[in-house]
Amino acid sequence: MTTTTATRAPVTILGTGPMGQALARAFLKAGHATTVWNRTAAKTEALVAEGASAAPTAAEAAAASPLVIVCVLDYDAVQTITESAASALKGRTLVSLTADSPERARAMAAWASGHGIDYLDGSIMTPTVTIGGPDAVLLYSGPEPVYRAHRDTLEALGGTGTYLGADPGRAAAYDVALLGIAWTSVSAIIHAFALARAENIAPGDLAPFAQGILGMLPAFGTEIVRNLETGDFRDDVSNTTSIAAGMEHVIQASEARGIDAASLRGAHAAARRAIDAGHGRESIARVIDFLTLDGTGLSAGAGRTPGHRR
Amino acid sequence: MTTTTATRAPVTILGTGPMGQALARAFLKAGHATTVWNRTAAKTEALVAEGASAAPTAAEAAAASPLVIVCVLDYDAVQTITESAASALKGRTLVSLTADSPERARAMAAWASGHGIDYLDGSIMTPTVTIGGPDAVLLYSGPEPVYRAHRDTLEALGGTGTYLGADPGRAAAYDVALLGIAWTSVSAIIHAFALARAENIAPGDLAPFAQGILGMLPAFGTEIVRNLETGDFRDDVSNTTSIAAGMEHVIQASEARGIDAASLRGAHAAARRAIDAGHGRESIARVIDFLTLDGTGLSAGAGRTPGHRR
Repeated sequence: MTTTTATRAPVTILGTGPMGQALARAFLKAGHATTVWNRTAAKTEALVAEGASAAPTAAEAAAASPLVIVCVLDYDAVQTITESAASALKGRTLVSLTADSPERARAMAAWASGHGIDYLDGSIMTPTVTIGGPDAVLLYSGPEPVYRAHRDTLEALGGTGTYLGADPGRAAAYDVALLGIAWTSVSAIIHAFALARAENIAPGDLAPFAQGILGMLPAFGTEIVRNLETGDFRDDVSNTTSIAAGMEHVIQASEARGIDAASLRGAHAAARRAIDAGHGRESIARVIDFLTLDGTGLSAGAGRTPGHRR
Repeated sequence: MTTTTATRAPVTILGTGPMGQALARAFLKAGHATTVWNRTAAKTEALVAEGASAAPTAAEAAAASPLVIVCVLDYDAVQTITESAASALKGRTLVSLTADSPERARAMAAWASGHGIDYLDGSIMTPTVTIGGPDAVLLYSGPEPVYRAHRDTLEALGGTGTYLGADPGRAAAYDVALLGIAWTSVSAIIHAFALARAENIAPGDLAPFAQGILGMLPAFGTEIVRNLETGDFRDDVSNTTSIAAGMEHVIQASEARGIDAASLRGAHAAARRAIDAGHGRESIARVIDFLTLDGTGLSAGAGRTPGHRR
């Protein structure tokens, strides 16, 4: 039993974790007949109460709709599920909204192609609460005709859907790049509150200043993009040497309090490599050329001896 | 020769790097007789042209004003300068707006006290361009009477000046916590563009999405503070297991392209320690309890064996 209208294409969602549930709700709300499946069936109950149909297997769920979306933890899970439903998926469109690497997305596209399945790879760049609303940001890559055929249906997910081109790994490439910003920065926020705690600074006392710093990051991002686009790395304001000195203070203060500074140590080592190569007075964006794994790059001290680059 | 009015207290700035220049300009603009000194004298010329007086030595510069501000690279530099000017500083107020660790700030306060110098330790939380304007954020710590005596003069630096209490290390403690957020996040932005470059994604193509991620960080920060203040780490949206899986994709994708992921590896190792201790379904804020240096903590794989915590 569904609450769909006749004009909306049916949709199947494989995986009803928090994000899969948000996707299913957005389709239900937009009037699509929505079939759901989850490895742990209990997780579909709330959606069924809201009008979704639950299928007992991934294959039966896939058979219910021309458009099948899979949203699970990673591509190991995607693979297990889609292999169990390969025959049912044949002739349908599979959209993976599961985050993983570009390589896995390309491998998945090749697998789908070999099984007669149209395939799009997508990335969801905003939290569950945004799905179906104006703030959702979704990226898609894969064959353009496949994207065009389902664009109207996918619009039910809300916000901005951006098509990035035929390379099925493109959305995942954006995703990994952007996830790196999100989770490294979130980890840095937590590290700041660990340092504050060690100094008996209450979270609420540091919070407004932390928000001030976070509020400056978009401007820093704009400046980094300007550096990269123009190739002009001049910086009279806070050059790499000065930033590296700041990083050293944070590392010292952290470790003096028994607080792990491994993340910042990694960032600092890269900055040191840029400085040792003569770029200390340039913008920190210049470090982009020193984020290379060369066998010594992962050690915090590796770049400290000027000229000693292997 | 200065352009001061009679009602404004004279100020001395030791160190005229980019930030020292911004400080001097703010005092000049507010009508304070401003004396400057820099190890490399040429760096004071522009300020002299704008009305500042240059002194040939730090001691002579210090002797010119009741309030002496030192703003240099770090406390090694502060120490060299202030020791050379110790007699001149006696009976005056020294304010260090040089970033370093709380320990160094406390040691500096002790040194100043032993030399009959009133001392405040401050941190500047916003870039040079903000100084003297409404967006400047400065933090001060040290004896309250000393702060009160110079508060009106320090207001020339603009924006918000916040007094954090008598512990001279307090401003530096805020500073190191917040600098960690800034430079770790900036490094993460650069890392994202390195990944994009490896995938032939132009900086301008990734930029709007990177800005989207940066725009979400304040909300993430608010949620982390809520977690820490309430002790409630429940999270149904993006728990630590799911975030760690995302981090692994970024690390794999980076290293497959020869891109250093050391910073994210550090963050991931801490998340793994929280997961291995049974907190995978909780908010990433819970990692605050696992940012401990325990001899194994700096190695990316150290926390992987459940129960194996030393």
